[in-house]
Amino acid sequence: MQLISETLEQAIEQLARLPGMGRKSAQRIAMHLLKVDNEQVFLLAEALNHLKTRIQTCSTCYNITDEDPCPVCASEKRETGLVCIVEEPKDVYTIERTREFTGRYHVLGGVISPMQNIGPNDIRIQELIQRIHGNEGIRELILALNPDAEGEATGYYINKLVSPLGIKVTRIAHGIPMGTDLEFIDDATLTRAFAGRQAF
Amino acid sequence: MQLISETLEQAIEQLARLPGMGRKSAQRIAMHLLKVDNEQVFLLAEALNHLKTRIQTCSTCYNITDEDPCPVCASEKRETGLVCIVEEPKDVYTIERTREFTGRYHVLGGVISPMQNIGPNDIRIQELIQRIHGNEGIRELILALNPDAEGEATGYYINKLVSPLGIKVTRIAHGIPMGTDLEFIDDATLTRAFAGRQAF
Repeated sequence: MQLISETLEQAIEQLARLPGMGRKSAQRIAMHLLKVDNEQVFLLAEALNHLKTRIQTCSTCYNITDEDPCPVCASEKRETGLVCIVEEPKDVYTIERTREFTGRYHVLGGVISPMQNIGPNDIRIQELIQRIHGNEGIRELILALNPDAEGEATGYYINKLVSPLGIKVTRIAHGIPMGTDLEFIDDATLTRAFAGRQAF
Repeated sequence: MQLISETLEQAIEQLARLPGMGRKSAQRIAMHLLKVDNEQVFLLAEALNHLKTRIQTCSTCYNITDEDPCPVCASEKRETGLVCIVEEPKDVYTIERTREFTGRYHVLGGVISPMQNIGPNDIRIQELIQRIHGNEGIRELILALNPDAEGEATGYYINKLVSPLGIKVTRIAHGIPMGTDLEFIDDATLTRAFAGRQAF
């Protein structure tokens, strides 16, 4: 095969490193970018660079933000006593989309995972304890961790650590997703849904 | 919804403009890039910029290239009398992958399409005629256009134009793809395969 363009190869190679992107999709995107306005490509490249040059971590909640403190922590409309514990910044993004949660967040930056050698000190649990001892007046933590072994273990650990401090710890409900037929639900979810049944 | 980061939104918006990319994939990629090394993001952004700053059009065959003439036109190993006519640079890419074709290319930059108001003068047919009258010694054109109405019309037009000049015009065979079961073949392809039958 005659190498047509080293520049094109480089672009395809870099694009193919993105998650969910095969070499075919990377090729299609690179070919597409060759055809569009220069402006669009420069804007894309600039926007990607800005991800690294403009985004920082909020020193209160450890979510990503353009300015420290982040808009959630800076907002006077948010409850400061209620803190939602999440694993990653993308979880904040997902929860904010519902417009339902009115408190602040605490981004752990991971979950406890003995298999991957991630202990309590490798995620921001110490920082959470410091916040609780701080002046935010935190009285309730809502755990919004993924319902897997690591998420459970992390929730268990946090609960054990902060309960003695007089902090209420709750977790978001797991059960049947809205709009789903019962027959398509896996056993673990159904078991959880029964255990978590609520008064009608 | 609290806007978490304008910078992140910009990146997602630009990524979502890429072909085959929904907002969800764009979000996943942006979140992924937040986590990887700065270096990887800068390399990606640079590679994309280079698509616009380093790639040009070969003044002989009109394929994309880092240098003019392109590696195919510059190569002494390629036959100069045999020219494969394609619609887009990506077709050259696809054909080169087979390592079978030993001639040069001519990239039309489109096909004749009355529906989209694209006539013979809007694609590089005049440039093809000039090449034929030039010093490449062109004796055969192989049409490798897509087997749709526009591709057929474009092939028909080129054949009518260059046959009087003593140029042989062929087209790549259409038929049953290798490794495909007959029962999965559409009628048009099967009809074409019968019409194009060859001695065993």
